[in-house]
Amino acid sequence: MTDEERPVPDKFAELRHELAVANRILAHEGVIDAFGHVSIRHPDDPGRYFLSRSRSPELVEPGDILEFDLDSQPVKTPTMQLYAERVIHGEIYKMRPDVVAVCHHHAAAVMPFCISGDPIVPVFHLGAAMGAVVPFWDSRDDFGDTNLLVVKPAEGASLARALGRHSIVLMRRHGATVVGASLRELVFRGIYSCDNAHYLSEAKRLGNFSPLTPGEIEMAQAIYQLPNAQSRAWEYWTTRLAKQDEMPSRATRVVKSVIKKQTAAKPAKKPAKSKGRKRR
Amino acid sequence: MTDEERPVPDKFAELRHELAVANRILAHEGVIDAFGHVSIRHPDDPGRYFLSRSRSPELVEPGDILEFDLDSQPVKTPTMQLYAERVIHGEIYKMRPDVVAVCHHHAAAVMPFCISGDPIVPVFHLGAAMGAVVPFWDSRDDFGDTNLLVVKPAEGASLARALGRHSIVLMRRHGATVVGASLRELVFRGIYSCDNAHYLSEAKRLGNFSPLTPGEIEMAQAIYQLPNAQSRAWEYWTTRLAKQDEMPSRATRVVKSVIKKQTAAKPAKKPAKSKGRKRR
Amino acid sequence: MTDEERPVPDKFAELRHELAVANRILAHEGVIDAFGHVSIRHPDDPGRYFLSRSRSPELVEPGDILEFDLDSQPVKTPTMQLYAERVIHGEIYKMRPDVVAVCHHHAAAVMPFCISGDPIVPVFHLGAAMGAVVPFWDSRDDFGDTNLLVVKPAEGASLARALGRHSIVLMRRHGATVVGASLRELVFRGIYSCDNAHYLSEAKRLGNFSPLTPGEIEMAQAIYQLPNAQSRAWEYWTTRLAKQDEMPSRATRVVKSVIKKQTAAKPAKKPAKSKGRKRR
Amino acid sequence: MTDEERPVPDKFAELRHELAVANRILAHEGVIDAFGHVSIRHPDDPGRYFLSRSRSPELVEPGDILEFDLDSQPVKTPTMQLYAERVIHGEIYKMRPDVVAVCHHHAAAVMPFCISGDPIVPVFHLGAAMGAVVPFWDSRDDFGDTNLLVVKPAEGASLARALGRHSIVLMRRHGATVVGASLRELVFRGIYSCDNAHYLSEAKRLGNFSPLTPGEIEMAQAIYQLPNAQSRAWEYWTTRLAKQDEMPSRATRVVKSVIKKQTAAKPAKKPAKSKGRKRR
Repeated sequence: MTDEERPVPDKFAELRHELAVANRILAHEGVIDAFGHVSIRHPDDPGRYFLSRSRSPELVEPGDILEFDLDSQPVKTPTMQLYAERVIHGEIYKMRPDVVAVCHHHAAAVMPFCISGDPIVPVFHLGAAMGAVVPFWDSRDDFGDTNLLVVKPAEGASLARALGRHSIVLMRRHGATVVGASLRELVFRGIYSCDNAHYLSEAKRLGNFSPLTPGEIEMAQAIYQLPNAQSRAWEYWTTRLAKQDEMPSRATRVVKSVIKKQTAAKPAKKPAKSKGRKRR
Repeated sequence: MTDEERPVPDKFAELRHELAVANRILAHEGVIDAFGHVSIRHPDDPGRYFLSRSRSPELVEPGDILEFDLDSQPVKTPTMQLYAERVIHGEIYKMRPDVVAVCHHHAAAVMPFCISGDPIVPVFHLGAAMGAVVPFWDSRDDFGDTNLLVVKPAEGASLARALGRHSIVLMRRHGATVVGASLRELVFRGIYSCDNAHYLSEAKRLGNFSPLTPGEIEMAQAIYQLPNAQSRAWEYWTTRLAKQDEMPSRATRVVKSVIKKQTAAKPAKKPAKSKGRKRR
Repeated sequence: MTDEERPVPDKFAELRHELAVANRILAHEGVIDAFGHVSIRHPDDPGRYFLSRSRSPELVEPGDILEFDLDSQPVKTPTMQLYAERVIHGEIYKMRPDVVAVCHHHAAAVMPFCISGDPIVPVFHLGAAMGAVVPFWDSRDDFGDTNLLVVKPAEGASLARALGRHSIVLMRRHGATVVGASLRELVFRGIYSCDNAHYLSEAKRLGNFSPLTPGEIEMAQAIYQLPNAQSRAWEYWTTRLAKQDEMPSRATRVVKSVIKKQTAAKPAKKPAKSKGRKRR
Repeated sequence: MTDEERPVPDKFAELRHELAVANRILAHEGVIDAFGHVSIRHPDDPGRYFLSRSRSPELVEPGDILEFDLDSQPVKTPTMQLYAERVIHGEIYKMRPDVVAVCHHHAAAVMPFCISGDPIVPVFHLGAAMGAVVPFWDSRDDFGDTNLLVVKPAEGASLARALGRHSIVLMRRHGATVVGASLRELVFRGIYSCDNAHYLSEAKRLGNFSPLTPGEIEMAQAIYQLPNAQSRAWEYWTTRLAKQDEMPSRATRVVKSVIKKQTAAKPAKKPAKSKGRKRR
């Protein structure tokens, strides 16, 4: 085994595993299908985040998780394809220092709202996790006709501005992007915002619906913070994965050979910087 | 093995197992997901009930089942988190001596009605198990803005008053609570009330619907009492669990170590008492 | 092994197996859940039919299949519960000598029509298997308030009259009953009538729908007769069962001990006779 | 082993395997059920195509794949039933030299549109794979009352004319036919056109919807060409098959005995010819 092939200890093994688990939970619980992705900000360096190489979340393994700067450039040149829309993550991390995790998806429950422009509001206690307001973003506003993917940094920054201080932004004719103050909060919010959208859609067809009051939203948003809520839900989702033999493997060492040496100069790493919104 | 660790015989092993099975059936048949809970009144002491520690019903094992008084205080100090909303069970058991089992859930089939305020009525023979009237409860009426959880005894008592003599109460912007004269009746009612809600919703979109007459409801409510109905359905649900390897394990002994000794004084056990409604 | 316990050769082993398979296909493909049943007329004696003892179709084994006369009395006194609504089968077999198989179900796809009274018509080529007309039956018309179950022979006869010469009858606020000239045709019709109902419901919500013309229905009804249609579908459904390990076991011998000897006189077997409609 | 039974090397083993995989993906992802079929044009001879014998796509094995001329006559006389509607494939291959793969299905998501006549338009980025226009075909227009199956060459040619230069044609009261410039593009288009139809239906019930602009459609159609889109989706779908143990077996040799020798003269193979539309 050459030096290149010898595994290096991975101090972020646990984080990579948890991120792979979060990817798989969101896939298994119907939020993500072939396309979509989930990231987490580097715990020690706010100018970095972790995201899988281009792979469906249902299949993500710890060994797929790569490190990016906030310009969404990989820290080490990868040998595999990257998500075309990774700027969604980088630009949101730039604009929102409070955000620790980001998910982009096209869940069936929210797509009708992304297509119709109907607003989503919290309609049950667990839906309050979304927050009171769910803004829209429409690529046409800033960019006219595009292929609707968020690929350029300017597109990611535009999306991040539409997200603003909120927790979810609906992308017209495309899907949604969710943020969280922790990875587990992101998963909780991703799942229950979809349930909320589905119940809202069904309630609207029955007739009227009465949403939560601002006071109810504010109080119910804190449900996720209850210790038994957090642990119960995480145990539920991970056990359901394990029962289907869908948990990722535990990788404690990153094999050097997945990092390709380049003799040519690497692109300069840009320092993390905030764009647009001031940090709180 | 110390005295603390030695298993004590559990004379309620069969009951704990059946309650764990009921939890798992309601999860497996789509009534309960990560959140929700199922309890049964103590067969010998109407001032006690059995309920799992805070765990998703899909995962509940007999060893998770704890004993509570009707003020929803655990009889022995537990080492694990408890359901925040267990007062739902205790307060209903206080008010309804005929009730032997209680389930709180947020089933997708009923949520649109909880959100819209549209009434649910029985629309097919098995839906008559719900009874003729399904009342609503809205936390705003008695408590203004809350986080919508039923945590305080006064909130549980308010909910129990709204349930009244009925079998199900819909909790606005939250979910539902179902009661039964037996655990198996509770499971039957929980499942078929969801089917009923779904068919009602679909029928309303086609156009008119004709509900059951009071006479039909009264007669069809007794379907569950038919011996072949009871046994057929229970065999169906438990076999479906077993086929998915989802049956709980059989625990005949409760390990003492899950019961934490407290040197400090335990909270006084309050005697079971009725609040509000007179007992029949 | 006593004489009572010695297995007797079962010349209808293959038929019992096929009927168990049909039960399981209809359960597995979403037509039947805990309640519902499937029967086949005796191949040699039109005054008899085969039907399981009271058991959910998903679980039916060849050893559960019992023999009945057309008054729905068991030929041999059973040791197990019987379906309360077996007169549905017997009375239809009396009135329809062309019918070889009968299924009673409460499929989710047809329930909204049973509840709303909206008619079901064929809307795609495979739905033509239902026939041009799907009549309704309402127990109120002949019997006023009941528990909606079809238990008495008079109720079964009333239902059979409403079925008339058609292939499916919708039972208001209850479910549906399907007939077939063969067991496999019954399964095909049961499954595709449900698909048809679902597509009709969805199409009505989009707006107008254009049903099949009488000529199209007549021609498309014959699709099932095409040899590759029959075998392809049956292979599909049985393989799907087998992949889930849901095929019934093969029982070639009926154990005598399931047949309870009675010293008291058995009820006289009534000869098969037609009620109401003249035979073609 | 006689000469007849000795396996012949199959130079198209990989193609047969890939076609079997495509069949199974479309079944597994909910596009195809018991009825429907998927073909691919011969890579070396545009006057031939490969299609399974009559078998549900979910079950298709490489050894089921037969070769046909564009008149949909089998190249070698088969021992098994053929799809009655194979002219759909042959006639489209005649008219569309750019088409490499064809799928006929009755997916639940598109059936309501086939029944109502409501148009399907792209409403999200992945739905643009369908193209801007999804034409209808109604057998009544050219043929009056039929059984709605496309069995005669004239019916297949009529359908191919309605398809025109587009990627999907909706067949009134029947289903849909999809084409692709490659087998993998066909699978992608088949799956995402169904998602698109479903989201459109749901969005219409919420209220208005804004479809993609022509510019957006044109640009988003190219998403499939992105390398990471192709590989990510294919890995996702094949891994999901493999996890369910649903991948076809690998057959490298076609056993001669499935090819039946005929002493009588075989029907003359007609040369591939274009009908109707001029080739570009």
